[in-house]
Amino acid sequence: MVAKHSLVLQTDFGLDDGAVSAMYGVAKTINQDLDIYDLTHNIPQYDIWTASYRLYQTVKYWPAGTVFVSVVDPGVGSNRKSIAVKTKTGQYIITPDNGTITHIAQYVGIESVKEIDEATDRLPGSEKSNTFHGRDVYVYNGAKLATDNTHFDNYQNELDVDAVRKLNIFPPVNREDEVSGTIDVLDIRYGSVWTNIPFSFFEKDDIKYGDIFDVVISHRGTPVFEKNIKFVKTFADVALGEPLIYINSLVNIGIALNQKSFADTFDLGIGNDWKVDLRKVKGE
Amino acid sequence: MVAKHSLVLQTDFGLDDGAVSAMYGVAKTINQDLDIYDLTHNIPQYDIWTASYRLYQTVKYWPAGTVFVSVVDPGVGSNRKSIAVKTKTGQYIITPDNGTITHIAQYVGIESVKEIDEATDRLPGSEKSNTFHGRDVYVYNGAKLATDNTHFDNYQNELDVDAVRKLNIFPPVNREDEVSGTIDVLDIRYGSVWTNIPFSFFEKDDIKYGDIFDVVISHRGTPVFEKNIKFVKTFADVALGEPLIYINSLVNIGIALNQKSFADTFDLGIGNDWKVDLRKVKGE
Amino acid sequence: MVAKHSLVLQTDFGLDDGAVSAMYGVAKTINQDLDIYDLTHNIPQYDIWTASYRLYQTVKYWPAGTVFVSVVDPGVGSNRKSIAVKTKTGQYIITPDNGTITHIAQYVGIESVKEIDEATDRLPGSEKSNTFHGRDVYVYNGAKLATDNTHFDNYQNELDVDAVRKLNIFPPVNREDEVSGTIDVLDIRYGSVWTNIPFSFFEKDDIKYGDIFDVVISHRGTPVFEKNIKFVKTFADVALGEPLIYINSLVNIGIALNQKSFADTFDLGIGNDWKVDLRKVKGE
Repeated sequence: MVAKHSLVLQTDFGLDDGAVSAMYGVAKTINQDLDIYDLTHNIPQYDIWTASYRLYQTVKYWPAGTVFVSVVDPGVGSNRKSIAVKTKTGQYIITPDNGTITHIAQYVGIESVKEIDEATDRLPGSEKSNTFHGRDVYVYNGAKLATDNTHFDNYQNELDVDAVRKLNIFPPVNREDEVSGTIDVLDIRYGSVWTNIPFSFFEKDDIKYGDIFDVVISHRGTPVFEKNIKFVKTFADVALGEPLIYINSLVNIGIALNQKSFADTFDLGIGNDWKVDLRKVKGE
Repeated sequence: MVAKHSLVLQTDFGLDDGAVSAMYGVAKTINQDLDIYDLTHNIPQYDIWTASYRLYQTVKYWPAGTVFVSVVDPGVGSNRKSIAVKTKTGQYIITPDNGTITHIAQYVGIESVKEIDEATDRLPGSEKSNTFHGRDVYVYNGAKLATDNTHFDNYQNELDVDAVRKLNIFPPVNREDEVSGTIDVLDIRYGSVWTNIPFSFFEKDDIKYGDIFDVVISHRGTPVFEKNIKFVKTFADVALGEPLIYINSLVNIGIALNQKSFADTFDLGIGNDWKVDLRKVKGE
Repeated sequence: MVAKHSLVLQTDFGLDDGAVSAMYGVAKTINQDLDIYDLTHNIPQYDIWTASYRLYQTVKYWPAGTVFVSVVDPGVGSNRKSIAVKTKTGQYIITPDNGTITHIAQYVGIESVKEIDEATDRLPGSEKSNTFHGRDVYVYNGAKLATDNTHFDNYQNELDVDAVRKLNIFPPVNREDEVSGTIDVLDIRYGSVWTNIPFSFFEKDDIKYGDIFDVVISHRGTPVFEKNIKFVKTFADVALGEPLIYINSLVNIGIALNQKSFADTFDLGIGNDWKVDLRKVKGE
């Protein structure tokens, strides 16, 4: 008796047409009993960085054995590889080898990587279609792997874990009374900024709620925001519209306005071009 | 053998990032066999009123034993309580105690309320995170309750049903040849206006399809719309773009344009500031 | 022992309110074990053509026995019929008889059509509601049919397959060195244009990757776009922002820009008013 695992899909396809449903149908045709869920289908088009971050934000909360299929694939049909990745925490990710596993590799760890042969490991009869590997290759393999995790052993071509494509991540820096990092991503709906600065930096420096920081945000070296902001436990600890520094849900440092979009208000973006410096100015 | 029940999630998180999927993962980690569904994740940010209304619109259509988790939670991490509510129709709702159960209390009825202890009834290892109770507290408890409804008995602190926080609802008024109420919510996609005037007012007054009403809509006491509109069975009973009064799907009175947005066309909003008066002018 | 089948929902309701969740609840009340999925709920309001196309794009990828419920229903509550359709590939579709099965009839084939009696085959207690047949009639019947496909035999009124309402489809034309068709739909998220010209026209004419076509797109007879474009295997075969002709995922001819919206850039729409002519100018 083989244990069944969830299949979780992420794409940049949106939910306005039939693309995602066709993927569900292929999975259900392989295994009618499969449980299928969405991570998100609203990754900005072609935005591999954000796809990578959303896997980091979610994969570890799912049971070992869960199979993720992530398809942000501007190179579909070209010679970029297709891979199946097993994480150190026991989940699987099937995706083009284009940087999508960057954050998982960095923060979770990869145990093993197999290459998927797009010519043979694909939906039978789909050979004339070259632009929808989400349906024809990725979910097809994802459904098999979710049905039975030992399907991973069927992929003969094991790749070097370190050879998998990764995007650049600039490590956060912990100096005396100052920490620095980048804006990794936004908490989109609320406009909060999520940095890559771990809360452990604050713990090491014995920083407490109520401490105040001089926050400088720079874009390509040019400061675009500077303000003194208090480190608090939660949004409601400051007045409506006021800024706060807080521990986000991945236990990294976030910066926000209470019930207002920090990113929109100050026109902030994400990625390595966006640097955040926090310098402690006083305790309370 | 314990019966399994569906877990249904509602938030204002949107579906553009990984927040909802992390909630699903936590639920699946508690019970791999759980069936999880979405009510909506597009409640306008911080809009407790609309969250409350959407529960009223849906809860009664689900089987007894279904567990709803509703997270519109501007006070996350503050001293607002977390509660588990059992409705008189046998469904459960887990939510911050911030007014989210207003319409359920009014129109469905609450049988019993328990307090959830955020310090102990939470995802193990999540203690450093203070801003994502949707994942760390609410869905964690929701998954346990959906797995086994008797988990409700484990919450030791029973609260007074009447002490639960409720928003103000202004009751509709039935006078001779005139009924009044407020705009509770929009049928968003089509722009129809849903009032809190029950169709039973019409039944009592022996109003028939074809009867015409003088409709006045006021905002904070100032009339912003007035027109004679016919009460009909359905949209297609009037020409394209023409107004109609109809019985909506919750058997309350709705006002709409056929295949055009009534709310957008006349710039109408929702809530207690928006009053609707219907005065019968003639029958046919 | 009756085999369980998936229930798949499509509407133009959006996911911002409780309408779709109320439909799920009705289905779950009929059968707690039912697997329910979404095709899309973002069909443009009242757009029967697009609803029809999305069924064509997805139905065949799901297992035989799957039940689709499609509700784009501007005539709800009027005298338009409600029907249950069995396709030649063994899936079922429950929908208003308003043209929604046009593409399925044309490209997949209908085996049998039954009429649903809206007065008797509906959610008990829903009789006062006339504007939400998605909940009160369609998903109610869909859940019964997904629970047990033999429920199809219970509908006594069999309709003539050819009498079912269909929208006009203009067939594509294959002339010497020139093929013509219409713009059926957009690959919405990316802005690619999907024509109704089958790739088989290219195969018959021995067209190869690298061949160049003079592409003319006309709106109601007036040319609005003309350019020489190369037929290639996939997007990445041309530079960023450059046009391409390709085989789309339904093995029809698509036209796109690489990582840019072709439809937005040239302000193109869909439907029979939009004609596409491709004339081969040279091979390579």
